[in-house]
Amino acid sequence: MANNTEGSKLWGGRFVGDTDPIMEKFNASITYDQRMWDADLRGSKAYVKALEKAKLVSAEEMEQILQGMDQISDEWSKGVFLIKPEDEDIHTANERRLKELIGAPAGKLHTGRSRNDQVVTDMRLWLRDAIAILTDNTLQLISTMVERAAIEIDVLFPGYTHMQRAQPIRWSHWILSYAVTLSRDVERLLEIKKRANILPLGSGAIAGTPFDIDRELLQKELGFDGISLNSMDATGQRDFVAEFLFWASLCLTHLSKMAEDLMLYSTKEYSFVTLSDAYSTGSSLMPQKKNADSLELIRSKAGRVFGRCAGFMMTLKGLPSTYNKDLQEDKEAMFDCYDTVHAVLQVTTGVMSTLKINQSVMEAALSPDMLATDLAYYLVRKGVPFREAHGLSGKAVFTAECKNVSLNQLTEADLAAVR
Amino acid sequence: MANNTEGSKLWGGRFVGDTDPIMEKFNASITYDQRMWDADLRGSKAYVKALEKAKLVSAEEMEQILQGMDQISDEWSKGVFLIKPEDEDIHTANERRLKELIGAPAGKLHTGRSRNDQVVTDMRLWLRDAIAILTDNTLQLISTMVERAAIEIDVLFPGYTHMQRAQPIRWSHWILSYAVTLSRDVERLLEIKKRANILPLGSGAIAGTPFDIDRELLQKELGFDGISLNSMDATGQRDFVAEFLFWASLCLTHLSKMAEDLMLYSTKEYSFVTLSDAYSTGSSLMPQKKNADSLELIRSKAGRVFGRCAGFMMTLKGLPSTYNKDLQEDKEAMFDCYDTVHAVLQVTTGVMSTLKINQSVMEAALSPDMLATDLAYYLVRKGVPFREAHGLSGKAVFTAECKNVSLNQLTEADLAAVR
Amino acid sequence: MANNTEGSKLWGGRFVGDTDPIMEKFNASITYDQRMWDADLRGSKAYVKALEKAKLVSAEEMEQILQGMDQISDEWSKGVFLIKPEDEDIHTANERRLKELIGAPAGKLHTGRSRNDQVVTDMRLWLRDAIAILTDNTLQLISTMVERAAIEIDVLFPGYTHMQRAQPIRWSHWILSYAVTLSRDVERLLEIKKRANILPLGSGAIAGTPFDIDRELLQKELGFDGISLNSMDATGQRDFVAEFLFWASLCLTHLSKMAEDLMLYSTKEYSFVTLSDAYSTGSSLMPQKKNADSLELIRSKAGRVFGRCAGFMMTLKGLPSTYNKDLQEDKEAMFDCYDTVHAVLQVTTGVMSTLKINQSVMEAALSPDMLATDLAYYLVRKGVPFREAHGLSGKAVFTAECKNVSLNQLTEADLAAVR
Amino acid sequence: MANNTEGSKLWGGRFVGDTDPIMEKFNASITYDQRMWDADLRGSKAYVKALEKAKLVSAEEMEQILQGMDQISDEWSKGVFLIKPEDEDIHTANERRLKELIGAPAGKLHTGRSRNDQVVTDMRLWLRDAIAILTDNTLQLISTMVERAAIEIDVLFPGYTHMQRAQPIRWSHWILSYAVTLSRDVERLLEIKKRANILPLGSGAIAGTPFDIDRELLQKELGFDGISLNSMDATGQRDFVAEFLFWASLCLTHLSKMAEDLMLYSTKEYSFVTLSDAYSTGSSLMPQKKNADSLELIRSKAGRVFGRCAGFMMTLKGLPSTYNKDLQEDKEAMFDCYDTVHAVLQVTTGVMSTLKINQSVMEAALSPDMLATDLAYYLVRKGVPFREAHGLSGKAVFTAECKNVSLNQLTEADLAAVR
Repeated sequence: MANNTEGSKLWGGRFVGDTDPIMEKFNASITYDQRMWDADLRGSKAYVKALEKAKLVSAEEMEQILQGMDQISDEWSKGVFLIKPEDEDIHTANERRLKELIGAPAGKLHTGRSRNDQVVTDMRLWLRDAIAILTDNTLQLISTMVERAAIEIDVLFPGYTHMQRAQPIRWSHWILSYAVTLSRDVERLLEIKKRANILPLGSGAIAGTPFDIDRELLQKELGFDGISLNSMDATGQRDFVAEFLFWASLCLTHLSKMAEDLMLYSTKEYSFVTLSDAYSTGSSLMPQKKNADSLELIRSKAGRVFGRCAGFMMTLKGLPSTYNKDLQEDKEAMFDCYDTVHAVLQVTTGVMSTLKINQSVMEAALSPDMLATDLAYYLVRKGVPFREAHGLSGKAVFTAECKNVSLNQLTEADLAAVR
Repeated sequence: MANNTEGSKLWGGRFVGDTDPIMEKFNASITYDQRMWDADLRGSKAYVKALEKAKLVSAEEMEQILQGMDQISDEWSKGVFLIKPEDEDIHTANERRLKELIGAPAGKLHTGRSRNDQVVTDMRLWLRDAIAILTDNTLQLISTMVERAAIEIDVLFPGYTHMQRAQPIRWSHWILSYAVTLSRDVERLLEIKKRANILPLGSGAIAGTPFDIDRELLQKELGFDGISLNSMDATGQRDFVAEFLFWASLCLTHLSKMAEDLMLYSTKEYSFVTLSDAYSTGSSLMPQKKNADSLELIRSKAGRVFGRCAGFMMTLKGLPSTYNKDLQEDKEAMFDCYDTVHAVLQVTTGVMSTLKINQSVMEAALSPDMLATDLAYYLVRKGVPFREAHGLSGKAVFTAECKNVSLNQLTEADLAAVR
Repeated sequence: MANNTEGSKLWGGRFVGDTDPIMEKFNASITYDQRMWDADLRGSKAYVKALEKAKLVSAEEMEQILQGMDQISDEWSKGVFLIKPEDEDIHTANERRLKELIGAPAGKLHTGRSRNDQVVTDMRLWLRDAIAILTDNTLQLISTMVERAAIEIDVLFPGYTHMQRAQPIRWSHWILSYAVTLSRDVERLLEIKKRANILPLGSGAIAGTPFDIDRELLQKELGFDGISLNSMDATGQRDFVAEFLFWASLCLTHLSKMAEDLMLYSTKEYSFVTLSDAYSTGSSLMPQKKNADSLELIRSKAGRVFGRCAGFMMTLKGLPSTYNKDLQEDKEAMFDCYDTVHAVLQVTTGVMSTLKINQSVMEAALSPDMLATDLAYYLVRKGVPFREAHGLSGKAVFTAECKNVSLNQLTEADLAAVR
Repeated sequence: MANNTEGSKLWGGRFVGDTDPIMEKFNASITYDQRMWDADLRGSKAYVKALEKAKLVSAEEMEQILQGMDQISDEWSKGVFLIKPEDEDIHTANERRLKELIGAPAGKLHTGRSRNDQVVTDMRLWLRDAIAILTDNTLQLISTMVERAAIEIDVLFPGYTHMQRAQPIRWSHWILSYAVTLSRDVERLLEIKKRANILPLGSGAIAGTPFDIDRELLQKELGFDGISLNSMDATGQRDFVAEFLFWASLCLTHLSKMAEDLMLYSTKEYSFVTLSDAYSTGSSLMPQKKNADSLELIRSKAGRVFGRCAGFMMTLKGLPSTYNKDLQEDKEAMFDCYDTVHAVLQVTTGVMSTLKINQSVMEAALSPDMLATDLAYYLVRKGVPFREAHGLSGKAVFTAECKNVSLNQLTEADLAAVR
């Protein structure tokens, strides 16, 4: 549609000529969406079968296309697929290569399909597999924790609230508190997977397809759990991405909390745990330092991942319906969150399976004032209403502080005076 | 523990004396958590039954407490409950009042309970009920949309992608695309409710309770679906709040999109729909203006609600485990998101059930160039590979543009020349 | 413009009748923007002077309006201003009241003015004053810190990096590190004030005013530093709010860091500082607990405030130019951030001016391994390249660990063996 | 410090052996911080001069180091610098290479320096230069806009508020509204640059340096505007990054607004502007489509960039003071925001300098009802109070609507009837 004046600048500005190289780079997604090469090929292979069933390609053409696809898959697997400058995205790259390999029939592959339904099919296939891996990673972390808790079940140490010593608890109780939290993350992941694993192909750009594309065949070929109901919703909404980004954020918020606890416990001042060297680093300046870098990275990634979620939600806000180019932001966010959580879960598993606890230090930290609640409960059992017992126990703590002795060193007379 | 030097300033600073009024106000939550008065009373009524079963209060004391609670409930219902300056939060307010009403036995109510498990019990009760209301609101919106779509099923108008006319679609297809989206919001809400509706009471501050509190009794009394597994997780995690805040954000992102579409459709330039006056306002300066304020508010609230989610996630990040005062940020965020979504869903239902469509304008907007895809498909059916057909159809569009006629006015000769 | 069918529902939906009470409540801002009553009156008083100069009101009418304004101001000051149900916002409330007080001339006040330029004038006046208060609060905190640092300049304690003991530093060095950080916050605040304190009045709704309104008179009357250049920019952009929200977020991120340090230092394990009781609270369950609630609240508010910023930025994103109702989200965010930072700065000042340090504990924590860097530097001064000296010092630390002695207890033989 | 049991897993978990490859990859920053190679070399060259002045290296050693640095610079420039697996970050990579090139003296370069002050020096140098480029980009966009506004100053079109036609304005008024907004972005950028361009080198890891490092020499060599005051603040705070990320967010929020306007104006329905083909793309399915992808990308990037800001702020929140590994998140955020804004500004300049306006369509859209405000003002000039004139004008609009004529077609009788 271009004519000879189109694209020329009218006033000022940086750009002269018909194409703006910055715009081209800005527009292209191949640098990151090539990661979905396999999902794209799988989607196209299923689609050509539906085309054949609809008599839009012949059996022979279908075979040519399938074989071409297999060869392209092979090239990607071996790392020899050559991306060309005009390959804007993974879809055009694969189709361009198909045409080189098999010629004319390649031009029939896109019949009744739009990049709008193609890209979202690829993403759903990719994410479904990614979720399966993350589920495994989380379960492995949980089982490492459970195993450790079982073995160290008799170790006691202070439970803290408000970062102040509260009551004696088992070390395993602390470990399992996170295992329980993470089990909800697994539960959520399965719910997200269920909603992600829905076939959108067949939606066209917006209005569906006028051809007789058998979507149940597509579903079966691609292993989807269901078929999208509305073509505008299927191509224009990105709930499944947003849900995943938030899942990653919440999961890492949990792990940032665990990392914070472990960082405290591994300070000189607490000395409850010692990280393995594999998860620590030294200082370029201070020879004696051993830093818990792994924990700091875990803590920090909660921010990074939530930033991706925040960014994508802001991009979504106020967009009109159906496909708008703004949605291109979905992929980098999804990939980055996957990579980050994937690494964090594995590093956390490594940390948890290799750290050493210093049992004697942990138990020495159980200072007698932590029994104040139990003293109050003792009084409750004697019939004193709790609110009164709480006050009396508080006074005993104060008496002990004033006498500079510990709570269990108070005399009968001291305790009698409290009442 | 205070002595006469405590609280005095040592250096500079704004504050002289033993108590800082700003700190007191900063610390108190009664201004907003009073909203959970009913949940707090229900939780305490169940708890006293468990105390009685555990022989920590007598049957008579239990009755006194239950009757006191009923009276307090009555005072709140009638708006005559008097909050006193020392009532830091709803829990202390209710217990203080109970003591005024029934005296000594009130002091036994908190036996084995902590504000840490009490507050999270209240919040879960409150949120469970709030979710039920939002579910109804969303379902009502969906059914309004479905009803409207059924009646207006024969109205056609342009489907847009990239804000450009794409293909003719049914108006009902547009409506139902959002009904489908919202049905996923309902699905998610039910999943969140399932996880929110878990009993944490009995977890104490961190280490559970040494008394024989029957948690199954508590669960049954309070209608919870399950019982929390780990006391540290139960008192220290706020997943159920974070999940709800994100749910609200995603739901409003959907409605912001719908509002954006409707705002476009109600501009002078599109003129597809006319909002009811009930959902429009005028201008203080320009007499002719009729602004779609309702839609702008719907669009804007996606930001507000996501801001609450972002704020709370940031507050959670890096917190150590168990209860820290930081968690007090949970309630205002939860209430504000509930109120906002509750209003937005109802306003959207009002907008959708009262707006008028301008069918003739909609149909007049179906310009012939929107059939270009169908022209390509026609050629596909004649055996032309889609990629080639797409190119030919594009040339036909260009020819029509050059001749300043519409696509369907091209002559046979024009079409022949294209090939 | 309403007729008898307008506003009736056509299909389903919750609402029957001509006005939707939820929409009215949703649309109204009087519950929170009444806070700008004084700014609104000041703005109107200046405006009527400009109207008089432009011969749009007579001198007598001006006097009536000014006196009416003074009376309204008096009513607000005394808390007796009565808001009526139809008072949608502070602007309509004040004008409605003016009409009640002085009759017809009140109708001339809004000549050539729009709520679009009126509201942004009010906000800028309000924020300018708020910034002045926050500047004072921050400066007071800084001077408290500087004063304290001067007195406690000789106290040493461990400097930490990665939460691990790094090198001995002065306690005052820690204090002043935050004073320096906060001084940049003051610098930024002044820059924001400069940009906030610009007169938008005279911009009308979008296109300026056709009347001879003397904007320099308005500027002078209202004490603005400059006059807005473009009426669309002036009524439609909210940079000055966004900048302020981010300022608050960054400032609280600084204070969250300081709070985190102090929380660590006030744990039992560190015991470097003791918070005044005025800034601590007890536990409802555990009698011995003393929690640093003030610090936890300070830490948490960074999330809250940034959430407001995130929410408003998301609301702004993708809005078309000029006034859209979405901008109504600006005020609650601005007020909440102001109130929060205002309280946090004062509480932090209180904490810093009343906490006690435990000098002997601080100095006892200066473990000899913290001198490893100095040992390396000693070798550097002897001519050993730093990288080698770093390695040797590290070996000495390791030898000391193995022998279970401290670094300064190594013998000459030990040190010789290291080389 | 490793021994043969360190790093082995104790329980479960994924990892066996002494080093965890995922942890290594997780920890390394060389993949992205290599981008600062030049800043790193410049910083080291200045530092060696200070070392020489402090007699910590000889003049000859200094020369060797400087020459080594030049050679490394040359290798980076030519793209032949070889990163080795043990090169964790750009600092170790450059120093490792220096050692290969010049041997022992390389070991003296890091004397009295820490990676903590080194990295923040590199970042400040890098950002300072980046800001200079962005300032130019923004100024070029502004001047393109101003130039265009000057030429098209006589074109009128509808000004919109609430997306509804409001009052006639000049097209150049719209253009300049954004030029004014952007000029504030430039102003802010200069303020940020001023604070970024401060020398932190000499701060060591936390406690400064005991050597006689001449920081004024460093400042002068590196062209910094000032010298940091406190070593803990200098190494531990990242205000300058956070400020920059927010600057980018606010700037892109402005451009997202402009893009939204232009997207509206380029719809079929408005048809006010036509984008150059260089900034549009077609559809893979619909032959007739011409999509304003450039504008959609601009709009979307506001989300992406703010996500980076949100993520980094969340990472900062609640961190203890000084360097923690969490801060490593600063660089990718900074680079990504720079790259994005750099591209967006240039693309926007391209769009603005090449788009065509459709003057006749613009002017035809100036419907008579847009003169309702002027009608009210006419009455004001006749002495009618504005509030009354507003009402009368509104009635005239209603009369015209009822008679299905335009406002300027009302008869004298019609107008008389209104009163």
